[in-house]
Amino acid sequence: MDSVKTKIMIVGFGVVGQGFFDLFHSKKESLGLNNVEITEIVDKKYGYIERPPIDLTEKINGKTDYPLIDPAKAIKNSDASIVCEFTWVNYKDAEPAFTHMKTALENGKHVITTNKGPVALRMDELKTISKKTGNDVLFKGTVMAGTPSFNIVKLIPGAEVLRIRGILNGTTNFILEQMSKGSDFGTALKEAQKLGYAEADPTNDVEGFDSAAKVAILSNYFGWKHRMSDVQREGIKNVSREEAAHGTKLLATISKTEASVAPLQLEDTDLLRHVNGVMNALEIETDSLGPIYTMGPGAGRKETAQAALTDLMEILNKN
Amino acid sequence: MDSVKTKIMIVGFGVVGQGFFDLFHSKKESLGLNNVEITEIVDKKYGYIERPPIDLTEKINGKTDYPLIDPAKAIKNSDASIVCEFTWVNYKDAEPAFTHMKTALENGKHVITTNKGPVALRMDELKTISKKTGNDVLFKGTVMAGTPSFNIVKLIPGAEVLRIRGILNGTTNFILEQMSKGSDFGTALKEAQKLGYAEADPTNDVEGFDSAAKVAILSNYFGWKHRMSDVQREGIKNVSREEAAHGTKLLATISKTEASVAPLQLEDTDLLRHVNGVMNALEIETDSLGPIYTMGPGAGRKETAQAALTDLMEILNKN
Repeated sequence: MDSVKTKIMIVGFGVVGQGFFDLFHSKKESLGLNNVEITEIVDKKYGYIERPPIDLTEKINGKTDYPLIDPAKAIKNSDASIVCEFTWVNYKDAEPAFTHMKTALENGKHVITTNKGPVALRMDELKTISKKTGNDVLFKGTVMAGTPSFNIVKLIPGAEVLRIRGILNGTTNFILEQMSKGSDFGTALKEAQKLGYAEADPTNDVEGFDSAAKVAILSNYFGWKHRMSDVQREGIKNVSREEAAHGTKLLATISKTEASVAPLQLEDTDLLRHVNGVMNALEIETDSLGPIYTMGPGAGRKETAQAALTDLMEILNKN
Repeated sequence: MDSVKTKIMIVGFGVVGQGFFDLFHSKKESLGLNNVEITEIVDKKYGYIERPPIDLTEKINGKTDYPLIDPAKAIKNSDASIVCEFTWVNYKDAEPAFTHMKTALENGKHVITTNKGPVALRMDELKTISKKTGNDVLFKGTVMAGTPSFNIVKLIPGAEVLRIRGILNGTTNFILEQMSKGSDFGTALKEAQKLGYAEADPTNDVEGFDSAAKVAILSNYFGWKHRMSDVQREGIKNVSREEAAHGTKLLATISKTEASVAPLQLEDTDLLRHVNGVMNALEIETDSLGPIYTMGPGAGRKETAQAALTDLMEILNKN
């Protein structure tokens, strides 16, 4: 790894892709990555960009004179050893991200993703290919962006994880906080959309699909095998202002026997009750420590990019 | 490492030593440590125990027929490659723990400790020896027991830590919570002593020495170089019940330019305000994520043992 250059390809150059591109370059030197380069980018809108200049994100808005190439084809032809999959979420069949990741693995590349679709819906398939080819699929950014989440268990070897509770969706947590201060649901949702926390179609957040995807991801990580379709899911549409004011949160609960997302009124002594705004939180109940907590941002350009950087360093340190 | 047995020596067989002994044996198989053994124990009271039986802690109370040997001599004569230093805290000169650790390093052994004295007061000396001999000194258990604390930065490579705030002493946090419910200081302290949270002489906790030691340890870890004697320190003796009821906590603050322990009234929106009982918490402000939080137990038999197990796995994975 010392003299050979490690090449990275980015697939999907939206907010996360651009955030990763910039964070990578700003941290390259301090992380000693002189020998690692982002050599290719492929994006549905921007096209195929080879040897991108480091000030690319400043210039790219509206730029369309790069050739449009099918991402799967670009991945197959690439000499990069690491592919970062940053395209859009699709909870139906996880495409096109799944095909991108599968193609990368089958062509001997490690995969980093922040895309919840393939990890929530088709991780078993990806694991099978990954085992066969010996390449990694890392997905830290799918739960709590760059904030330590499931990977915190690396710091407590031997500890058995018994149960997890979490606030895993910042949009609904923000809406519930606004409602606890007197807003009605509609006004709070509009405020969330204005601030860029909620999408134009807020279904995935408000109905709990985003949280349910994270429940499936955590369940898979901890070997509990609940699928996204198995997750008992209730959104926040029926939560009243009064309930919000009394500490109702959209709570994810996961253990060997549970997998649910539902609004729940939390006690004042419950640390999760005090997680406000778009912040995310996990309570991890273990045998040696009892409950431990990790909290922090669960979304954002730089915040999600940090997750991909964490995964990148894990791959580089292992290989 | 595969065929040669890795031998561990425990120095100091009190609550932490016994906790580690038991946790090690209960997790040995799941961690794949068939080739790792605790082969020697040396303790001021119990004496020198070679090839201890795995049910030792059940039998040891009052047991005194093992030979009394000077621990430094036992370390020098030991063929263990890892020494766990679990003796008592001394904030004057960090002895005898410092001598134990120094002897271990000079004799080619890695050191794991949960003892704040040497790490808070004499880490620079230990680092110098450690560099010379190439052996590690790991001390996860000195801050927040086995709960992820400073080591959480391993999960966010590249992120720059700008500032830390923390509740690092469970005893005073418990006392302040009792006071917030109406107890006076004396009654709350007695309750803490009854529950085993406070020692007969509570000075180290109540006057903020324990927190100040942790400030020094964190400062050293993050390269900010504040010594324990530099830490601005105020205990909780002058906190009123009313202040406790309005969210006053014994707060540690550390950055390049700050190192303090003082009672501070926290805002209701501050997550640290809601950390109650003997729980500990760290807020770590970073450039890529903003503030992230880790919370959990900061003391206890099994909880502190987990920290030493975490350090042990780090040494085994590296060597």
